[in-house]
Amino acid sequence: MLRTHTLGELTAKNIGETVTLTGWVARRRDHGGVAFVDLRDREGVTQCVFHNEEDFDHLRNEYVLKVTGVVTERPEGNENSNLTTGEIEVEVNEVEVLNTAAPLPFQIDEHVEVGEEARLRYRYLDLRRPEPARLMRLRSEANRVARNVLAEDKFTEVETPTLTRSTPEGARDFLVPARLTPGSWYALPQSPQLFKQLLQVGGIEKYYQIARCYRDEDFRADRQPEFTQLDIEASFVDQEDIIDLGERIVEAVWGLIDVKVPRPIERITYKDAMEKYGSDKPDLRFGLELTELTEYFENTTFRVFKAPYVGAVVMPGGASQARRTLDAWQEWAKQRGAKGLAYVLVQEDGELTGPVAKNITEEERQGLAAATGAQPGDCIFFAAGEAKASRAILGAARVEIGHRTGLIKDGDWSFVWVVDAPMFESAADATASGDVALGHSAWTAVHHAFTSPKPEFLETFDEKPGEALAYAYDIVCNGNEIGGGSIRIHRKDVQERVFKVMGIGEDEAREKFGFLLDAFSFGAPPMGGIAFGWDRVLQLIGGTDSIRDVIAFPKTGNGYDPLTAAPAPITQQQRKEAGVDFKPKKDEKK
Amino acid sequence: MLRTHTLGELTAKNIGETVTLTGWVARRRDHGGVAFVDLRDREGVTQCVFHNEEDFDHLRNEYVLKVTGVVTERPEGNENSNLTTGEIEVEVNEVEVLNTAAPLPFQIDEHVEVGEEARLRYRYLDLRRPEPARLMRLRSEANRVARNVLAEDKFTEVETPTLTRSTPEGARDFLVPARLTPGSWYALPQSPQLFKQLLQVGGIEKYYQIARCYRDEDFRADRQPEFTQLDIEASFVDQEDIIDLGERIVEAVWGLIDVKVPRPIERITYKDAMEKYGSDKPDLRFGLELTELTEYFENTTFRVFKAPYVGAVVMPGGASQARRTLDAWQEWAKQRGAKGLAYVLVQEDGELTGPVAKNITEEERQGLAAATGAQPGDCIFFAAGEAKASRAILGAARVEIGHRTGLIKDGDWSFVWVVDAPMFESAADATASGDVALGHSAWTAVHHAFTSPKPEFLETFDEKPGEALAYAYDIVCNGNEIGGGSIRIHRKDVQERVFKVMGIGEDEAREKFGFLLDAFSFGAPPMGGIAFGWDRVLQLIGGTDSIRDVIAFPKTGNGYDPLTAAPAPITQQQRKEAGVDFKPKKDEKK
Repeated sequence: MLRTHTLGELTAKNIGETVTLTGWVARRRDHGGVAFVDLRDREGVTQCVFHNEEDFDHLRNEYVLKVTGVVTERPEGNENSNLTTGEIEVEVNEVEVLNTAAPLPFQIDEHVEVGEEARLRYRYLDLRRPEPARLMRLRSEANRVARNVLAEDKFTEVETPTLTRSTPEGARDFLVPARLTPGSWYALPQSPQLFKQLLQVGGIEKYYQIARCYRDEDFRADRQPEFTQLDIEASFVDQEDIIDLGERIVEAVWGLIDVKVPRPIERITYKDAMEKYGSDKPDLRFGLELTELTEYFENTTFRVFKAPYVGAVVMPGGASQARRTLDAWQEWAKQRGAKGLAYVLVQEDGELTGPVAKNITEEERQGLAAATGAQPGDCIFFAAGEAKASRAILGAARVEIGHRTGLIKDGDWSFVWVVDAPMFESAADATASGDVALGHSAWTAVHHAFTSPKPEFLETFDEKPGEALAYAYDIVCNGNEIGGGSIRIHRKDVQERVFKVMGIGEDEAREKFGFLLDAFSFGAPPMGGIAFGWDRVLQLIGGTDSIRDVIAFPKTGNGYDPLTAAPAPITQQQRKEAGVDFKPKKDEKK
Repeated sequence: MLRTHTLGELTAKNIGETVTLTGWVARRRDHGGVAFVDLRDREGVTQCVFHNEEDFDHLRNEYVLKVTGVVTERPEGNENSNLTTGEIEVEVNEVEVLNTAAPLPFQIDEHVEVGEEARLRYRYLDLRRPEPARLMRLRSEANRVARNVLAEDKFTEVETPTLTRSTPEGARDFLVPARLTPGSWYALPQSPQLFKQLLQVGGIEKYYQIARCYRDEDFRADRQPEFTQLDIEASFVDQEDIIDLGERIVEAVWGLIDVKVPRPIERITYKDAMEKYGSDKPDLRFGLELTELTEYFENTTFRVFKAPYVGAVVMPGGASQARRTLDAWQEWAKQRGAKGLAYVLVQEDGELTGPVAKNITEEERQGLAAATGAQPGDCIFFAAGEAKASRAILGAARVEIGHRTGLIKDGDWSFVWVVDAPMFESAADATASGDVALGHSAWTAVHHAFTSPKPEFLETFDEKPGEALAYAYDIVCNGNEIGGGSIRIHRKDVQERVFKVMGIGEDEAREKFGFLLDAFSFGAPPMGGIAFGWDRVLQLIGGTDSIRDVIAFPKTGNGYDPLTAAPAPITQQQRKEAGVDFKPKKDEKK
């Protein structure tokens, strides 16, 4: 090593020692004839004292130095109790400039706000700042503790291929031309799903991988074209085994930020989550359940409430919102696809005001506070229409209320398993919510095509697809889905029936999943697994706003990397060599 | 869990217990009214005894069963001391067939030889066999122990991007069309080289990653288009630090197969390796050094030996080889690009025979055995011509001799660091040996363009590129390069001079590495690292012939995966969506 000590370890115990240190010039204060240089490395900062003007005069921020000197006590009153090294300084005898630094596009200082484009373009400078550096180390630690849980359970880490076959899983594949087989292309995997199931057929029994996955999606906020999953699959398990393992991983990872995860983690059925919280990923850091009022307004004369579903959510203290704020709620709702957000204000004297109050009967007004649990001073928001969409807007309003009223507090954590989700959803709904609906029927899989029905629906799921529940479980933290999994279909006949419900014909199934169906014919064991959205987990424990903060070299919208300027045009020669434009002799265009 | 015990844990201690077991039918012996079924899972095999004909009659190999029964002692004389569970059997009361199995393409039996095409097509069956399963677990363990070494040293695991920019590193890139930026393409990284250097500029200081890498090469034997590197980089280090860390990793990994690696691992200079062993990856499990005879034959009249280099290697006991065998050596040499392999046989009485012996003078004959160290009964093989090619063929002959004569023994291990390699080689040599020579001059980098010269060549490497030595080190095990690394160039001026030697102009350097050169201008620290060819390491400790054996789902020649049939044609719609055929409005063809 070029140094004898890091910059985070020297204390009063080292006084009198001659040390050699290396690091970056974080700050330089020139006091005329003497200069103080804060030298920084990843472990900390140490103050170095220069007495030779020619040694320090030319130093600039972010120069890389190697200094040799003697550890001395700081003069009384100059100690810095915020630093491990705050008791000492190093009197420099020798200095070597290992590298110079051009003037920086932004200062390496946690207190300077820098735009994301600049941060990512100069990510190597951004990473010198304490917070990004902390997140990189936290990620490394999260990997380590999760792997330890799995190793203790005798899980085998297996690396699955990434140059593989296009296997539709709800999004588009990235494609790679195969130069040696012109006209043929590899696909980058959306997940190791098929391979992890094949590994179970292969008797590996306990598999895991921190896996790179790829989805060529139209970029939504905070999605990345490549992302990381902690991917797990095991044989001869039931739902309880995977849930238990998942909880132990969550416990270990949140332990890194000293959060004790209460175990067993609460569970809620999909149905309850939708009814009470208007979401399949409910944020349970606070209460504020939705109230269904369909029956309450059964005989209403108010046209808007004559609907298949009427529901409400209460905003505590919301009656005092300014008219302007209440108008803004309407805009907020419209941006989410609703027509607006009807409301009633419960005044301190119990009187109901606002436009809706005038439209409902005296009797309806009388019981409303009691029916919704609203107190004087609260605001009741309503949604009416189709149940799914209405619940969704109330659920979103509930979370917004949680933030605005301070019911959601920094440092609060809620974890919940959402179980008993439906096996199928309407393909139209899936497409509407931005997924690619696999298959060609009215139904597509909510989770994926390999999810088993719960045993009680095994016989009937294809007759009544809308009623069948899946053997699936999602884990939700603070309203974010951080992981999800299921017990898989291991029987070929069941898998074929599922494909049939989804309108995937025998030929298409054979073409797309033939090798999996083959594998299932040779003694596939019962199996199940889970995959954690690892970037999201890291974002949450890191306390940041975006998964980009926990990815070393993330891409911005449209999949662009401002650092390397990828993607980029290729040369005609590359194009030709890669066989991109290969045309088969017999034109096989479809 | 569906079971109470695995199939590798029941012993006499469990006798009398009621247990539930799951696994595959490995073998079934029907003794008329009673049947013995060997049930197999990944932990072992347990013998299950069925007394009900209707329970066992329909069972076939590889059916998946769940059985409940009582552990009993095996009848005297029926114990199997080869099995942990060999003292007991399970009297089955209940059996459930979890899955059936179609007749298998090959038997799940370690003693059955199966062709590789079939093994890979049905890899999920192959993995049920003991040896492939062992290799998967060994790989997982190797990852674990290597990570532990790095974690103890406070290395940070960082995941670098795989959808990135084309950065020439000696092979072709795989390319990925960017749908959202038609006409632009990502490249899959040949290694995380650039990113790991950027991370050092970013102050991460200690980085590692078990990284997937991609090279679109013409497939040579035992290469894979995607492969794995244990990739390491650190700041403020010198060569000794990386070598020490590398040795600790090797020690930990070989420890998994109970091999004690002698430390410090021996070192040899590149020059000595070439001169003594004719290879930059010498196999030191045995001696048999090459002898240079250029001076010895300085005044020879034998035309063949009038050459810039004459050298020899001795085959102990080789004088007794049949004429047919000696002829086969000529073929062997021709396949390696040599004209043949001249030889002299030292008969038991000291007489030299063979065609060469007749062509050299009596004086040359007299001293030859002494000069080469040959004993009566040995064969001396010669090569003459250009030094590099001649040494290469002698080096290859040396290894072949090692195998044929039993000097290389199964279970022997040799480790050596090859240091002080030249910085540059002739571009023609690089191309001849199958690499893409980066740059446009007579010189290309032996390691890669970011390798630092040794300090003593820092001033002169561009004046005398052929003499400069690189600050690089390769680790060789049993004649295989298992890892290599270097101290990097951290100064922008030095990097630019290296590019200049390689004929990479300022524009090309900016286009290809602009972001790295930018990064180096902002205070890059001294840095160095190493990358282990992880598949090769696993192949060696696994004791197998091919890296395909240690990869879960490997590809065959031409990059084909017999299991998923990837790569495969894509549809016109996929082609269109991916923007493969996008033409810019202004034709920018070059």
